[in-house]
Amino acid sequence: MKVLETKEMGDVPAMMARLGRAARAAAAELAFAPAEAKRAALLAAADALCAAREEVMAANAEDLAHGREKGLSAAMMDRLLLDEARIGAIVAGLRAVAAQKDPVGEVIAAWDMPSGLHIERVRTPLGVVGVIYESRPNVTADAGALCLKSGNAVILRGGSESFHSSRAIHACLVAGLKSAGLPEAAIQLVPTRDRAAVSAMLAAVEHIDVIVPRGGKGLVGLVQAEARVPVFAHLEGICHVYVDKDADPEKARRVVLNAKTRRAGICGAAECLLVHREIAAGLGQRLVDDLMAAGVEVRAEGLVGTKAAAESDFGREFLDMIIAARVVDDVDAAIAHIRRHGSNHTEAILTENDATAERFFQRLDSAILMRNASTQFADGGEFGMGAEIGIATGKLHARGPVGAEQLTSFKYLVTGDGTIRA
Amino acid sequence: MKVLETKEMGDVPAMMARLGRAARAAAAELAFAPAEAKRAALLAAADALCAAREEVMAANAEDLAHGREKGLSAAMMDRLLLDEARIGAIVAGLRAVAAQKDPVGEVIAAWDMPSGLHIERVRTPLGVVGVIYESRPNVTADAGALCLKSGNAVILRGGSESFHSSRAIHACLVAGLKSAGLPEAAIQLVPTRDRAAVSAMLAAVEHIDVIVPRGGKGLVGLVQAEARVPVFAHLEGICHVYVDKDADPEKARRVVLNAKTRRAGICGAAECLLVHREIAAGLGQRLVDDLMAAGVEVRAEGLVGTKAAAESDFGREFLDMIIAARVVDDVDAAIAHIRRHGSNHTEAILTENDATAERFFQRLDSAILMRNASTQFADGGEFGMGAEIGIATGKLHARGPVGAEQLTSFKYLVTGDGTIRA
Repeated sequence: MKVLETKEMGDVPAMMARLGRAARAAAAELAFAPAEAKRAALLAAADALCAAREEVMAANAEDLAHGREKGLSAAMMDRLLLDEARIGAIVAGLRAVAAQKDPVGEVIAAWDMPSGLHIERVRTPLGVVGVIYESRPNVTADAGALCLKSGNAVILRGGSESFHSSRAIHACLVAGLKSAGLPEAAIQLVPTRDRAAVSAMLAAVEHIDVIVPRGGKGLVGLVQAEARVPVFAHLEGICHVYVDKDADPEKARRVVLNAKTRRAGICGAAECLLVHREIAAGLGQRLVDDLMAAGVEVRAEGLVGTKAAAESDFGREFLDMIIAARVVDDVDAAIAHIRRHGSNHTEAILTENDATAERFFQRLDSAILMRNASTQFADGGEFGMGAEIGIATGKLHARGPVGAEQLTSFKYLVTGDGTIRA
Repeated sequence: MKVLETKEMGDVPAMMARLGRAARAAAAELAFAPAEAKRAALLAAADALCAAREEVMAANAEDLAHGREKGLSAAMMDRLLLDEARIGAIVAGLRAVAAQKDPVGEVIAAWDMPSGLHIERVRTPLGVVGVIYESRPNVTADAGALCLKSGNAVILRGGSESFHSSRAIHACLVAGLKSAGLPEAAIQLVPTRDRAAVSAMLAAVEHIDVIVPRGGKGLVGLVQAEARVPVFAHLEGICHVYVDKDADPEKARRVVLNAKTRRAGICGAAECLLVHREIAAGLGQRLVDDLMAAGVEVRAEGLVGTKAAAESDFGREFLDMIIAARVVDDVDAAIAHIRRHGSNHTEAILTENDATAERFFQRLDSAILMRNASTQFADGGEFGMGAEIGIATGKLHARGPVGAEQLTSFKYLVTGDGTIRA
């Protein structure tokens, strides 16, 4: 990518409009690009990244040096870091997406009408996707690959801290596109750190069909509040686990511990434990003891040995080794609590009672509802999607883990034989 | 419905917020209402409307009298009119929607993962739909019925000219809801003609999940420009018919005439005829002669006996017995013309050549593409959807004719057996 002149950098809206037009043109070609060309581009990009790992690590070292100067937190520095193993994982991810089934052109449904018409509903790309993310350089490759697979052009706007790393990875993706004869503008990286680029993307209804923000609540909240372009996102993952009176104690202990502690910082981590009153003193107490023994701070109402919960601890995304806990009267009280405090991401029920599970499944409307399973499974890979560009809690178009398939739309292909309407 | 006090009418935003909260509460109940209750409500509404046809016609007479005073056009007065036959058609429509398959709860997909999880993708209602329409009182019943069938609460905002007619029809829908034990707020009609109600709906992201505008370009354009809530709509139906050099002449004559003249005022009517250069003087001329003989004004380039086309005649929705026509070099030129001037609604190709048809289908991205069939088939009923709330040209969520199924979202139901993530 050429380094932009200061003058050009100054006119960010004009630059973004240029990127947008190039993306639209690329999308028009990608819409009917052969599956084989997209596959070849992804494999070539993987090879290019593999060959360029020294350069990528050098670029990453620049970002790390700036990060140290700016005093980034240890967690942010860790997210930023690329080493041989992480680059290997990105390469493997590109190859995995290449190996996936191509969703474009799939006949989703087909039927005949009495008029003589044959109607097919066929999967098409959405068009142009905008991805706005924080300082994880791997998103450059993951999001770029998923958009290409689904026939969409993509405009990537990475975090300013990972500017050089993202550029180096992006160069490999472009090399892959070139070698497969696909338009280079299929995957564009915004070549400036100017925040005006983000505002331009959020308003670009002519050039961008959907925005996917990847990052913390601050970023997603800003995008949701400002965007004129539709957004696939989740603001928070305030995941609840409800342990019913008919729960199997061993399954409950295993699942609750995993849901909170496997990785406390991901959106599928449990943030609130709800326990049926009848088993609160027995199993409920044991669950809390297990959690505390694992180093979790439990902020509870009515459970021995815990810290007292404040009302604000319910409906809070800790993303840490902290969990809120509450005793509830029954499944309906659990449902009411979740409706009030949840974020429509993922909730789990532990019960052996089919009717109770059915009620929980019917009356809640989170993107993902689980029975006797850990909320940590809320992930595109664990759903068999191969990869995900994010998790959505909205109700339009995409919901739950968003993989290549959900980055598509459809059109109707109708065939007659000189057929006219009466 | 109670008649509102002037004072209450004055605070439209507060009133709309109240309607919105009531709709949300009703939607939460509707989401798990049994299919049978929704069916019973629709049948009871049909019976109530049948029984109340005198009152409905009396209310309609009031609207017609106001309409005459206001000097409405003959076309608008005709749209407004309700007689025995039209009320009978509305009743039949309610019964037809009642007889449709209930989409809610349908398992769209189900699979097992190596982790032991069983995953189901299940259809759910969207939540709350807002419908903003002009003075066709029948939309009150059609839209109300489709939203109820799909488990959505609906807020209806009818045209002010049909205020009394819509109120009378709405009362029958509410009677149906009551008799089936469903919340009355499942179908609400905005009880004021104040235009501030429309602005409030367009901004009501908390209370309304999607807006469907039904009406002319003025209404739809306003809604698309102002809405913060997502919109399912089409702004225009600039439908093209391309007659290829390999078209069957008889099929082409039949389809072109039907596509333009069956009903010139609907969104699926053809507005532009494109003719391959090789057959322009022969078949092309015959098509134009057919159209002119049927009373159509043809504004063309390079076809004998026609009016000269202005550049502004291309990409124009006439909704009248007028058609633009142009000679093009080949299918690629036709595709380029449609990309430039089309509205992504419906386009048709007339050809016996499979490769040419395939190219047209692949390279265009209208919601509906047809081969050897009339564009007038762009209609939910003709697609087997039973009824439609509108036609959408956007690429997110709903596309083409929008029936009950496309008024749904989905959630994932995941079942394990104490399953934890490694």
